[in-house]
Amino acid sequence: MKIKLYTGLGSGNSYKIDLMLKLLSVPYQAVNISIPKQEHKAPEFLAITPFGQIPVLVDDDQVFTDSQAILCYLARAYGGANADQWLPTEPGSLAAVVRWLSFAANEIQNGPTMARAIKLLGWAMDYDQAVSQSYRVLRILDDHLGKTNWLAADHATIADIAGYPYIFLAAEGGIDTMSFNNVMRWMRQLEALAGFWPMPRIPNLPPVPLAPVPD
Amino acid sequence: MKIKLYTGLGSGNSYKIDLMLKLLSVPYQAVNISIPKQEHKAPEFLAITPFGQIPVLVDDDQVFTDSQAILCYLARAYGGANADQWLPTEPGSLAAVVRWLSFAANEIQNGPTMARAIKLLGWAMDYDQAVSQSYRVLRILDDHLGKTNWLAADHATIADIAGYPYIFLAAEGGIDTMSFNNVMRWMRQLEALAGFWPMPRIPNLPPVPLAPVPD
Repeated sequence: MKIKLYTGLGSGNSYKIDLMLKLLSVPYQAVNISIPKQEHKAPEFLAITPFGQIPVLVDDDQVFTDSQAILCYLARAYGGANADQWLPTEPGSLAAVVRWLSFAANEIQNGPTMARAIKLLGWAMDYDQAVSQSYRVLRILDDHLGKTNWLAADHATIADIAGYPYIFLAAEGGIDTMSFNNVMRWMRQLEALAGFWPMPRIPNLPPVPLAPVPD
Repeated sequence: MKIKLYTGLGSGNSYKIDLMLKLLSVPYQAVNISIPKQEHKAPEFLAITPFGQIPVLVDDDQVFTDSQAILCYLARAYGGANADQWLPTEPGSLAAVVRWLSFAANEIQNGPTMARAIKLLGWAMDYDQAVSQSYRVLRILDDHLGKTNWLAADHATIADIAGYPYIFLAAEGGIDTMSFNNVMRWMRQLEALAGFWPMPRIPNLPPVPLAPVPD
């Protein structure tokens, strides 16, 4: 198999890439890295990437890190006739996609991703702050998706693939997405894409009480 | 003037765009938004961007937010013969640039940018955590720049423009960059680019003691 993906159960960032490969019908070999066993910080993995983070995508002799960057790579290298749909080259449309890639890398990361990491992995961060950031993120997304069907275009782009996983997983961090109607509609619509593949869930997770949505 | 840039004194994210426009010799009108006066949260500014953040670039009737996205836009729309240098289209090279754009949007943002915001703007975040994240960021950058001249290619790309400002400003947050030799060399090299324009500094800032670099 030409493409190898280092991925991990429960990692939304890894799932972004799993999902994109499935949507593009690109065959690949998945190599599971156990986060609970800290395999992403082991010397043999750090030899592949000094960042010590999954996902990592290896295509022949090229090593790619950062889920947003890997999405760009896959769209342009394997998007075929749809490459420009997934990641436009026209400057204004490209900027719209990158705008929401940054939102996934920063705002979503510091909100729902963080809240979940605190609850699931015991990260020593401020949970209340992550909750309030999460609801700020959901409000921005919901307002935006009230005006457009998809985040960055009138069709799915890699910005949607980048944004989806940690919004979908938000409840595992105690974040209530149910009352954000446009966000819910957008998730269901993404799940209806041809080739969509649901994320394998971590079994037997303890339930996390949902933090109330602020007025 | 065709291009209008909403910018703010002391904003490294705004400076990224100021700098890029200068490097591309693109004329523009700068509109100053006062962060101390909270003008970025005023209704007239929120009507331009619901994110309530600077920079915002307006080109004719197109409104662009997020400094990473604006850099992509400028590279492709105004890069001329050098567009592919600033932001490559070849999938692997593009992914390398986006990898470091994400690093600027996330790792640098949560490290040196955060440390400075806590000291300068009184953000209620954990300073020790921002310091430790800052030195983690500097270590990664320094190791990487020990192997390559520029972040994402053998020449300057928008990844360097995205990464530079908050590393340059790190001392204002008490972060000591001086002992990271490759990072210092990279900054001096960027400052030697044709068209480089230094960031206007906030006058009379109180000095912040430098946090010691961990072993």
